[in-house]
Amino acid sequence: MTRMGNRPVPVGARRDVRRRVRITTSMCGGSAAIYAQFGDWTWAAVSELCGVDVYSARTPGGAPAYLSFYHYEVRGDETITPRGLTFGDVVDLTSQCFDLGSESVLTLHRVARAGTDPGGPLTAREYLEDPRPGCLYVLNLNRWITRDRPDSNENLLVSSPVGFAHQHLPRPPASWPVRAAARQARNQGGFVPDPVPGYVPAAPPFEFGYDLDPVRDFNGVGLVYFAAYFAIADTALAALWRSLGRTNRQFLHRRVLGQRIAYFGNADTDARLTITVRLLRHEKEAGDEIADIAIREAGTGRLLAVTAVDLREPE
Amino acid sequence: MTRMGNRPVPVGARRDVRRRVRITTSMCGGSAAIYAQFGDWTWAAVSELCGVDVYSARTPGGAPAYLSFYHYEVRGDETITPRGLTFGDVVDLTSQCFDLGSESVLTLHRVARAGTDPGGPLTAREYLEDPRPGCLYVLNLNRWITRDRPDSNENLLVSSPVGFAHQHLPRPPASWPVRAAARQARNQGGFVPDPVPGYVPAAPPFEFGYDLDPVRDFNGVGLVYFAAYFAIADTALAALWRSLGRTNRQFLHRRVLGQRIAYFGNADTDARLTITVRLLRHEKEAGDEIADIAIREAGTGRLLAVTAVDLREPE
Repeated sequence: MTRMGNRPVPVGARRDVRRRVRITTSMCGGSAAIYAQFGDWTWAAVSELCGVDVYSARTPGGAPAYLSFYHYEVRGDETITPRGLTFGDVVDLTSQCFDLGSESVLTLHRVARAGTDPGGPLTAREYLEDPRPGCLYVLNLNRWITRDRPDSNENLLVSSPVGFAHQHLPRPPASWPVRAAARQARNQGGFVPDPVPGYVPAAPPFEFGYDLDPVRDFNGVGLVYFAAYFAIADTALAALWRSLGRTNRQFLHRRVLGQRIAYFGNADTDARLTITVRLLRHEKEAGDEIADIAIREAGTGRLLAVTAVDLREPE
Repeated sequence: MTRMGNRPVPVGARRDVRRRVRITTSMCGGSAAIYAQFGDWTWAAVSELCGVDVYSARTPGGAPAYLSFYHYEVRGDETITPRGLTFGDVVDLTSQCFDLGSESVLTLHRVARAGTDPGGPLTAREYLEDPRPGCLYVLNLNRWITRDRPDSNENLLVSSPVGFAHQHLPRPPASWPVRAAARQARNQGGFVPDPVPGYVPAAPPFEFGYDLDPVRDFNGVGLVYFAAYFAIADTALAALWRSLGRTNRQFLHRRVLGQRIAYFGNADTDARLTITVRLLRHEKEAGDEIADIAIREAGTGRLLAVTAVDLREPE
């Protein structure tokens, strides 16, 4: 699954990454685990396609460079969803990186149940205009960052590591508005416009206080782990569900067709967060709901992340 | 890392499993992730050494058989600890299964930083009498179980799947008291005797209420995930630390030399737990502490798990 040393694959030696993967227990234990796994696949793809071992990348000054997650989206269909993958499942993975310059990189994954992958190169056009049935797509926009002070997560500087090759990668089409979408989400404090045609509020606006959890929310280098934001948002969503009289069992069986998340900031170990959830339901389709969630630092109101979840009636 | 199909490795074709592993971000995001990973290694070892694909095992009646965790212990030394493994680290893994009959199996892993593995077969004697410096050992006692009702986790029956081969495995020595230790821990409600020579209480007995978390605590088949028990116990321990005026940052940097956990029951999605923590400190060595933790279902008092954590001064 992962490269073992510091010898990068020669740049341009491969067009993309293809791999068969067995979903293990750790990849689906808890609701953030599968997103953590997808993130590992992004680090693996960049390591294999961009000439730099992401796990040991350094800035020219010698500081560790960390390939942080800035925008993350997952899109399944009625037959394959992120929460629908369970241990024992075998999938075929295709990964492609796209050139965004020296400070960031765009990675697209296509995940299909073993033997059903449509084959062929994975292009921006396929994702934007012609997604294949039975395929789950994961898109990650990552930026290289480094800490400005070793003991704080509040200011993280953009950087570029030694050896990071990108000019050989396909360019994303100008019409691919990933960065613009994240910027707009930041300005609006959410992904979802207000109102959304065809949807009505399913609950009054919901606010939830959350203390960052030193047990679960931090990664091996003391940053709030990108996958933990999924769990943090889900914690607020679960609380809203309970306030509507829905059960934990229903929450466990929720079906997530897709999710977008944009990351704007990290936080320190003692931070308290304020999470707001706007839950919308389709006027006609029971179980078709959208949750638009903003995660802020309490007190300062600093926006840390926004996420939108597309929910469907459980199977 | 994992086998891709349903064709088991021929029984007896390998003496043990050896593999070089890069620790990825998902393996150390949050405090339970590394224990989840070790558990995956156990399922992989049993799949490779015991003639049955653990991920698709079935009872003779055709019901899914689940290789549950009954006793789990991790033991590092001053140079390698479970929380000391971080992303980018490369380790050499050796795994050996031992014969406990048709309904359970004992699996031992040796983890050493790449290039430092002492080599040679991994024996019970090495683990019990002669652990190698620079090696982390993980021991898992697993039992095959199946649900008696598809909608409840309260009664889980012992079972044995079709094709599970064990008689070719080395027998553990009679002096290896894993099952007896778990039984005794169950009877006593903890692993640690009272008193422990050389240790004194570091805090009054601590009780903590915990609602099972539908976001984080359940695995892909709706059982409380074995690795989540580590996080659940840590949640109570972190609360106790805070009650002693210690910071979340100190908790994040805690050093865990070893941990034992025994699993006695599962629980349903709405269960509330009562967690008791007895924290002891060494009379002379600052930072040398033992936490003895019991996890019970609130109301009934049913014992779900006990765990003991060996803590050391942070590096």
